[in-house]
Amino acid sequence: MSSSEPLVLINGSPEASVSPLDRGLAFGDGVFRTIRMEGGRPLWWRDHLVKLESDCRCLGLAAPEPGVWQQDIAWLSARRPDAVLKLMVTRGPGPRGYCPPNNPSLTRIVAASALPAFPDPLAETGMRLRVCDLRLGHQPRLAGVKHLNRLENVLARMEWDDPAIDEGLLLDTDGLAISGVMSNLFIRHGGVWRTPAIDRCGVAGVSRGRLIERLDVKVDRFGLDAVLAADSVLLSNSLIRVRWVSALAERRWSRPPDFAAILEDLR
Amino acid sequence: MSSSEPLVLINGSPEASVSPLDRGLAFGDGVFRTIRMEGGRPLWWRDHLVKLESDCRCLGLAAPEPGVWQQDIAWLSARRPDAVLKLMVTRGPGPRGYCPPNNPSLTRIVAASALPAFPDPLAETGMRLRVCDLRLGHQPRLAGVKHLNRLENVLARMEWDDPAIDEGLLLDTDGLAISGVMSNLFIRHGGVWRTPAIDRCGVAGVSRGRLIERLDVKVDRFGLDAVLAADSVLLSNSLIRVRWVSALAERRWSRPPDFAAILEDLR
Repeated sequence: MSSSEPLVLINGSPEASVSPLDRGLAFGDGVFRTIRMEGGRPLWWRDHLVKLESDCRCLGLAAPEPGVWQQDIAWLSARRPDAVLKLMVTRGPGPRGYCPPNNPSLTRIVAASALPAFPDPLAETGMRLRVCDLRLGHQPRLAGVKHLNRLENVLARMEWDDPAIDEGLLLDTDGLAISGVMSNLFIRHGGVWRTPAIDRCGVAGVSRGRLIERLDVKVDRFGLDAVLAADSVLLSNSLIRVRWVSALAERRWSRPPDFAAILEDLR
Repeated sequence: MSSSEPLVLINGSPEASVSPLDRGLAFGDGVFRTIRMEGGRPLWWRDHLVKLESDCRCLGLAAPEPGVWQQDIAWLSARRPDAVLKLMVTRGPGPRGYCPPNNPSLTRIVAASALPAFPDPLAETGMRLRVCDLRLGHQPRLAGVKHLNRLENVLARMEWDDPAIDEGLLLDTDGLAISGVMSNLFIRHGGVWRTPAIDRCGVAGVSRGRLIERLDVKVDRFGLDAVLAADSVLLSNSLIRVRWVSALAERRWSRPPDFAAILEDLR
């Protein structure tokens, strides 16, 4: 198997396949996690497990036991110790129609893809952002949850193919800043860090939770103007951890003077 | 194979399987159709084809050629001439991340399930509705499209398990009536038929399009109060075609006097 092919376990088996009647496929009826694994060690594993269980609960799914995931990851890490792990849980196969089966047989998928060579977060080049045209809709029942209904992110990501753009900034239908397409957003004015509230849309990433704690971040509502007026802008997710933003529209930023300390603090 | 097991073709093959890396599963990146087939003849086939192509376009997918679907359906109808057909197109397998591959290899799925014994639409018992707590969020970029991001419908359908309830009425976050969980909505005051605008949420079903034409329906915005005050309420989808509503909260309706004519007109 080529090193670029992901290794995949479905319900613990490398030979199993996904049913075409799986509700994950039919309705996006499930949740997922993206995890950085280095030297066989999944980064922020406990946080990811807590978040996965909380997301499952939001959809009324019984999350698999931690030990089951650990078995899958042990199998994969023996073969690919440095990887991007993607964990997925769906409500499993079901009869036609939206009504879930009474005793669903969940589908558990773990895929290990090659870990990309991430740029040095301390390099002088930060992330270059654009503002996406797509506006996130409000759905409080699903806000914060990393579920499998991700067409908004897909459509937003399809808006550019310029390799000089690293990420898209997503606003909601009210014009409030929410997040990147694949990352959470932090801005600083003076000494005060803020991150968007995600009670109406957006995803509560694990890296976001860690930064909120460590940087004493205020969860708040603000628009594009506040982002452009910020002294520093950061993006975070479980793969890049945290990176600083160097460009958005005409605005340019240099690396925040304390960025190395922030990165170290998050490690 | 038991008669209750769906027959499935994946990219034309009864032996193929769905990749766990399919973007339909990962992100709900695709669209679908539900079609009633009787005696090997898919009802309203041309309308469904037009809608499928239009929905594919909304996601930037190149819809499969009509002849390809027809081959799949011929294979299935030879084995199960009376069936519920479910057609699905996804952007196919792809590398990790929201960015679609440049030349996606689409996944085409057609499943034929047993056609349920639908109740006689002319019976004296109409459909019994409840109002769902879940409110549909607004996303104009996806409104009307029957895409694979259907968690709102799933969560709404999970609100009840009382077999005396046939369908849930969905309002949007503004409190406007939009549709049933699995059907489109029509109300009549005096001689005037109205159906909700679905430019912010909801699905533009094929049966809805046919009824709008045949009943000279006004596409409009209205709330629950207008539904309760209606002289007649109808629900439609491609399986039930059209049925009349007999109960919603405390409100009761009898069969509309012209219902047989409406049903006949839609046939």
